[in-house]
Order: sequence, then structure tokens, then C-alpha cells
Amino acid sequence: MTTHGPARSATLRQEPHDGVDFDFDLLVIGSGPAGQKAAIQAAKLGRRAALIERRRHLGGVSVNTGTIPSKTIREAVLYLTGFTQRGIYGQDYRVKEEIDIPDLAVRTRAVVERERHVVRDQLLRNHVTLLDGAASFVDPHTVAITERGGGERHVRAERIVISSGSEPSAPADVEVDDRTVFDSDGIVLHLDRIPRTLVVVGAGVIGVEFASMFAALGTKVTIVDGRPEMLDFCDREIVEALRFHLREVGVVFRFGEVVKAVEPKEGGALATLESGKQIAAESVFYSAGRQGATEALRLENAGLEADARGRIAVGPDYRTAVDHIYAAGDVIGFPMLASTSAEQGRLAAAHACGIEARPVHDLPFGIYSIPEIGFIGRTEDELTAAAVPYEVGVSYYRELARGQILGDTHGLLKLLVSSDDHTLLGVHALGANATDLVHVGQVVMGLGGTVDFLVETVFNYPTLAEAYKVAALDALNKLSAVTTLA
Amino acid sequence: MTTHGPARSATLRQEPHDGVDFDFDLLVIGSGPAGQKAAIQAAKLGRRAALIERRRHLGGVSVNTGTIPSKTIREAVLYLTGFTQRGIYGQDYRVKEEIDIPDLAVRTRAVVERERHVVRDQLLRNHVTLLDGAASFVDPHTVAITERGGGERHVRAERIVISSGSEPSAPADVEVDDRTVFDSDGIVLHLDRIPRTLVVVGAGVIGVEFASMFAALGTKVTIVDGRPEMLDFCDREIVEALRFHLREVGVVFRFGEVVKAVEPKEGGALATLESGKQIAAESVFYSAGRQGATEALRLENAGLEADARGRIAVGPDYRTAVDHIYAAGDVIGFPMLASTSAEQGRLAAAHACGIEARPVHDLPFGIYSIPEIGFIGRTEDELTAAAVPYEVGVSYYRELARGQILGDTHGLLKLLVSSDDHTLLGVHALGANATDLVHVGQVVMGLGGTVDFLVETVFNYPTLAEAYKVAALDALNKLSAVTTLA
Repeated sequence: MTTHGPARSATLRQEPHDGVDFDFDLLVIGSGPAGQKAAIQAAKLGRRAALIERRRHLGGVSVNTGTIPSKTIREAVLYLTGFTQRGIYGQDYRVKEEIDIPDLAVRTRAVVERERHVVRDQLLRNHVTLLDGAASFVDPHTVAITERGGGERHVRAERIVISSGSEPSAPADVEVDDRTVFDSDGIVLHLDRIPRTLVVVGAGVIGVEFASMFAALGTKVTIVDGRPEMLDFCDREIVEALRFHLREVGVVFRFGEVVKAVEPKEGGALATLESGKQIAAESVFYSAGRQGATEALRLENAGLEADARGRIAVGPDYRTAVDHIYAAGDVIGFPMLASTSAEQGRLAAAHACGIEARPVHDLPFGIYSIPEIGFIGRTEDELTAAAVPYEVGVSYYRELARGQILGDTHGLLKLLVSSDDHTLLGVHALGANATDLVHVGQVVMGLGGTVDFLVETVFNYPTLAEAYKVAALDALNKLSAVTTLA
Repeated sequence: MTTHGPARSATLRQEPHDGVDFDFDLLVIGSGPAGQKAAIQAAKLGRRAALIERRRHLGGVSVNTGTIPSKTIREAVLYLTGFTQRGIYGQDYRVKEEIDIPDLAVRTRAVVERERHVVRDQLLRNHVTLLDGAASFVDPHTVAITERGGGERHVRAERIVISSGSEPSAPADVEVDDRTVFDSDGIVLHLDRIPRTLVVVGAGVIGVEFASMFAALGTKVTIVDGRPEMLDFCDREIVEALRFHLREVGVVFRFGEVVKAVEPKEGGALATLESGKQIAAESVFYSAGRQGATEALRLENAGLEADARGRIAVGPDYRTAVDHIYAAGDVIGFPMLASTSAEQGRLAAAHACGIEARPVHDLPFGIYSIPEIGFIGRTEDELTAAAVPYEVGVSYYRELARGQILGDTHGLLKLLVSSDDHTLLGVHALGANATDLVHVGQVVMGLGGTVDFLVETVFNYPTLAEAYKVAALDALNKLSAVTTLA
């Protein structure tokens, strides 16, 4: 089932309205990736769709302070430091000796403005009504919109998608002052120089991504996390390799440790851990998770409630406890990735419009650490726990001509292959272009291809995609060895 | 059918030997990509395989003077000039103001030596016998090997694969002196400074790749070719876009023009075209095709002959006019790409070992121009000529967040989609990572996936692979518009 045709070809199935006139068929709260795709999906199905945004700019955290700015800065870091080429040219060839914040930001404003424009253009092209202001429920079908000027209006909708996004969880006893102590919204906006030392509190995706960037810039980074591990939804081997490479650029990990206090001092701050250790740093970055941005929504008026972290619970169709209200994106919690949120929004709106849309395929993950991670499907731990027999095929970038040319000697691609039918159960990549590279394996998985198919495939030379052939051969050789003896 | 298992699991089907004792079951002439894979394929099938190499180093032109050095230099050019980032940072951020040949070569030696090592290691690991010297036929089953020291020995083999590679076609009236005038073997080895002006004779793959590199380095490049077009096996729109971008960096094209004479002058040379035009340049690069390296093989003793360009004719199984002799790689002509040659070698050896191996899938093309080209399947012209109805879906990199972040505003991905069943008939990409990116589409084609599948696929954000979803949506919208009116 596809739901992407132009409006004119879609079935206009009007549900009974209980005798009530609604302003809109579908009302969406929040214009991040989930909200955009929800509103566009409904509009493409011929529904009257509206979208409420409380901020001045469309696009949500993803476009304005999250994904887009941080990935643009990351690209600047990689280029200006010559980071990936250090193995080849050494520090001498660094593009700029002293890198400052304006250097890193030079591209960000243009990319952010461009993306805001793309979002607005797509919504208007699809005839989505844009409503400017902060949303709060009046009753399960009515939302009040408070404009920045102070005016308020009410709109009524038959169905509603809550995609109000997330905000940084505030640390308990530490003040985020945007001068010495930053959270994940503020660090992009308010950091005015590159600190020589940095404490990152929280080893989630955002914490690891920023730790990577600062380490590449030469900052001495210490990551503190109360959990025993980081990125526990990723393949263990990949995470261990990432941690190895972060240590190589001076990152110190303090797992199972909790920051008890952060005291501002002249020129920085002193972080004290519960274990008694103290860490002096010019800056402290709190990335201790993000919580659902639901506080202002007056969910109780809709008969809904959020959990302690502001999240709204949904079923498999992204429907909340109230039948006609859906939630999608960061506001429902993990994984809080733009690509996944967009798909959730699309599926929620499709269901709200009476179409049984289900996620057809596995969803990929992309983590923009340095080196970056891309993966899809299951991990070794998950397969072992589920007693699914598999074999591993690995290719190291250093074995590939392209890896040698790029100077990426730490990258690797790992295929988890079903021992029964040779299909791919998981694809895990670390290294240059890993977030892009994983999509070759994703298509193989989505179309039911086997590792034998990959062995027979001819790849351009020299490319990183050759890793698939090498890893497939590795897996097939191991599978054959077992078959021979079995 | 797979042919990649370890030797122990392969069927050892011994063909009758006509009562003659052979030294080897399969003898391979030349250690380039075709020869390597032919010898390894035979060895994996349990055959006694040997490989003859006349040069001091294994790997053929691909490793030693062609693909690997030129792609390594290309990567250095892109990095040191900051070429892809110019739109973002301007010339100020150029890594090195004055780039010289040692800068470009710093990585090349290491990569080349590494690849030579990989080739040797793979051959020895598979128990291929390496024979050192120049091969020439004594009779259809006997090859003389002349060692560099002068010694000669004869080896007899039941079947033979000729993968002796190619060498630059010598220009008719112009002397390649490796000082002012270079050919495609010499330019990597002998060029000692970056010329301010360059004439490239021949707009084939190699000519266009080198023209791209020098133009990126700031050289004023003029390309001359007697044909009316360049890269005529590629999609027209892609080639036109490439030409547009090469013109933007100052490349001048002279199609339908023939170089009549090149006169060495103080500090350069003067090229005179048949049309009377004259072009002054510090260096001249002849890339007027490559011819089969067959002159020394004494093919006549095997009952074979090469054509005027040294090429050996083969049938669909890579078998020559003599039943037990095969040819693969550059020596059989177009497309002369390492990846394709490797596959030809594998298939030739498989057939020689009695296995009906056939190319299962379309083969991809990678052209490392700047921007680079990756494609697979058919072009618009081919589909139109064959009266196959299709629709086009296009995505421009500038519409993608990743394209904006990379500053690649000229890249594009073009899908040619069957109007009948929505499968992909061709995938054509130009821009950053195009040679890698094409493999996502290749897998869709190989596994019979449709454009609908791509529309439903979730890609990491921001990646270049998102271009597949955008292009697929574009194609599907056009197909729906036709369906609605039809």
C-alpha cells in the first residue's frame, strides 16, 4: 500500500462527524519532522490539515537547534581540522591553526535558513494551513492557540496529532547558565569559544556526538554517565570500537559515575562526582536526556497525561489513550531521530485518515559521532537472546582500496546473517559514510536478499560499498565451514 | 549458483586430459583485476592455478599506474584544494596555497604498496603459483616464460586465461617524451610539476578524470576530441551536467577537432588542430584510448590473433576462437574498468572449470571525474531506442539537507522507472559519493524492487541516500499523473 499519490487520486473517505462541524479534519501540534509529515500525509489524502507552531521558525528542534546545526558544525569540524586526513598529512596541513566559533558557524545559518524554507514550502505546497502560536487543549477536540502578541483563538479538529517535540531534561541541582554550563539546545546557540577542557554529562547520542566534535577540535573531553555502558541499543562491538577511537583522541570515560555538583569558578567550573572525584573544566555540557515538550499542552483537558519525563504513551498505530488523538516524534520517546519521527508522523496521520499504514521495514539508525555509526536490524545480543542462529561477516575499511585512499583505517562493516536462509538480520557500520553506507544493506534486508546475492554483486572500485562483498564472503566462508562439518 | 565456497566443498570435476600431463589446470597471463580473480576462482574450485606476471610488481595497471594512484591523487587534490568546500569557505581556507607534486604523491606510494601486498597475499593464500616473467605462446597449450634475468622456461596448461591488460595507444605523429607530452601510464610517474596550462587529447574516462583533477588544481585545461561527444555510454543529462561544471572551473572543450601536431617549445608545447587553431600549453596529456597488451604474446602460436587495437575477441563466456583459451579484462576492450575486469576474470575461469557462470546482474560504472559519476542499467537513449516506456524521477543534492551541509549543490540522482511495473531500469548519479551511492539502486534493481519500495523506505537524516526517496516520489507522482489521465 502506498499513500503518496497526489490528492486527486486518493480516496476521500469522510468519517461521520457526530453532527459537529470541525475547522479541520486533522490538526497537528508542532512542525518538526513528525508534524510536517503528519500534516502533509493528511493533506495528500484530501483532508483539511492544519499545523500549529509556537516558535517563530518552522522545523522544530531538528532544523533549528538540533540535527541540522550540529551536523553542519560537524562537517566544518571535519574539514577545518583535517581530522580524517591526519593519518595521511599530519597536523601540518590543518586548514586553520586556530579554529573559533565563527569558523564553525559560517555554514550553519545558511543551511538552517534553507531548511526552514524547505519545510514552509512543502507545507504550503500541500495546502496545509499554518497556525502561529502555542497550543493547549480546551477539550478533546478543541485546541486554544495563544499567539505571541497575546491573542487567543480556538480551533476544533476531528483528529489531532501531538508532535510537540522534546526539550533538554534540566539537571537537578545544576543551573544551566549558557555561559559555563550548557544543555543541548543552548550549546549551539550560546557557546562563544571552543573550551580547552569539557565535561559531558550523559553518554547518549547527543552527548557522544558533541564529545566527538570537541575532541576532534582538540578539547580534552571527559564523559560522565551513571549507566555502565553507552549507546546500549547499538551493537556492542561497534560501540567498543567507537570508544576505542574516542579514547585515542583523548576522551576520558567515567561510566557508573554521577555528577553530584557543578560549581562555577573563575574561567570554568568544578564538577564533583558522587565517588568524590573532581574534574575541572572550562565548560560543562549537560546532555542527560531529553523530555517530551508537553507541559504547556494542558493534556488533562483532552483526557490525556504525560509520564514523569513528559512523554505520551501510544499504541502501535501511534494512537494515544484517547481514540482520536495521536502522538509521534520525540514526544513519545526513543529513538528521537528525525528520520524515525518523520515516519511515525506519516503513519499516525495515515491511520487517523482511516488507512491501516504500518511500518513495512526496519528503520535505520544514524549516529553522527566521529567516526559515525549506521545500523539497521538486530544486534548480536538481541539475536542471541532470541536464540536466532546467525553468522557474522566483517569487512574492515583498511582492507579496501577506498579505505586506504580515504585514510580511514578504523572503519568496519559487520553483517549478521541468518544461518538458516542466508538473509541479513542486521547491518552495523562504523566509519566514513557509515550513515549512508548502511542503506545498501537496508535495501537487501527490505527486499529479502541474501548474503549470496551480495557475493555475486559487482561493486565500483574503489568504493566503500565493496565492504558488503568482502563481509558477505567472510560470512559465507564461515557458514560453509559449519555446513561442511555439520 | 555460488562459486565462492572454500575449495573443500567444491566439486572437483576433472576433465579428460587427452592423455597429456599438464603442469597446471589453469594458467593466467597477467596479474591485474581480471587475472587475480581468474586464478583465485580456479584455485577455489580445487584446480592447480598459476599466474604469470612480467612486471616486478603484481596488480597490473590498476594498482601500479592506473586506478589506485589516480584515485589516491584525486583524493589529495580534493582535500588540499578544499575544492568541494569552496562554495562555503572560499579560497581563503585552501589547505595549502602552493600545491606541488610531492604533496599529491604523499599518500600514493603507501596505498600502492599496500594494494600490491593485498594482491600477493590473496593469491598465495589461495595457493596460486606465481610465475615471474614475460609470457609468449609456444603452442596452444604451452607458454614460454622469459624471466627478467634472461632465463626461459615452458609451462603447459589445460586451459589458459589471457588477462594481459592494456597500454596507452601511442599517438601517430607525436612523441610521448614524459617531459612535456605524457600518456596515461607516464603522467602519474613522470609529471614533476603542476602545469599552468594543459591540453588533454581524448575525452574518454581517463582524459576526463585527469582534466577534472588539473582543473581543480587551477590548471587551465583544454580537452580536444575528434568525436562530437564525450562518455557516450553515459546518460546524456549527466554528461551535460558534468561538462557544465567542468566549464565552470575553466575547462574548454574542442569536440570534433583533431590534433594534427604537437611541437615542443621552450617551457611547453604548441598544439595545432586540423582546423588551424593553435593551443599553447605547458603540458600535453595524450589519453587517446588504450590498446590490448598483446604484442609480445605470440598469439599466432596459439592460433589466435588480435585486432588492430591489440584486442582479443571473445564470446559471451569470455572464450576466444580457441576453445580452451579465454580472455578477460582490458585486453578484450570496453569498458576497461577494474570492477568489471575482475568479474570477467571470475566468470572466464568458472567457465574454464566447467561451471556455467553467467553475469547475474547489471554491472555498475564508476567514473572518478570531479564531480564523480556512478550509474547502472540503461540510459534514456537506450530505453527510447528499445521503445521501453519509462518515467524519470530526479533528486538534486541541493534539495537534501546533506547536500546543503556538504556544499554540493550540483549533485543529482536520476532514476529511470518502468511505466509498466515500477521497477528500476537505470540509476544515474553525479556528485559527491556518486560511485558509492549508485549501489543502493543497484541492489534494488538486482532484487527486483520497485520505486514504491523506495518511497516506503526510511533513510537516515541527513544522508545522500535520501535522494532515492525524493527521486522515487518524483517518479511516482509523474506515473500517477499519467495513470489518472490515461
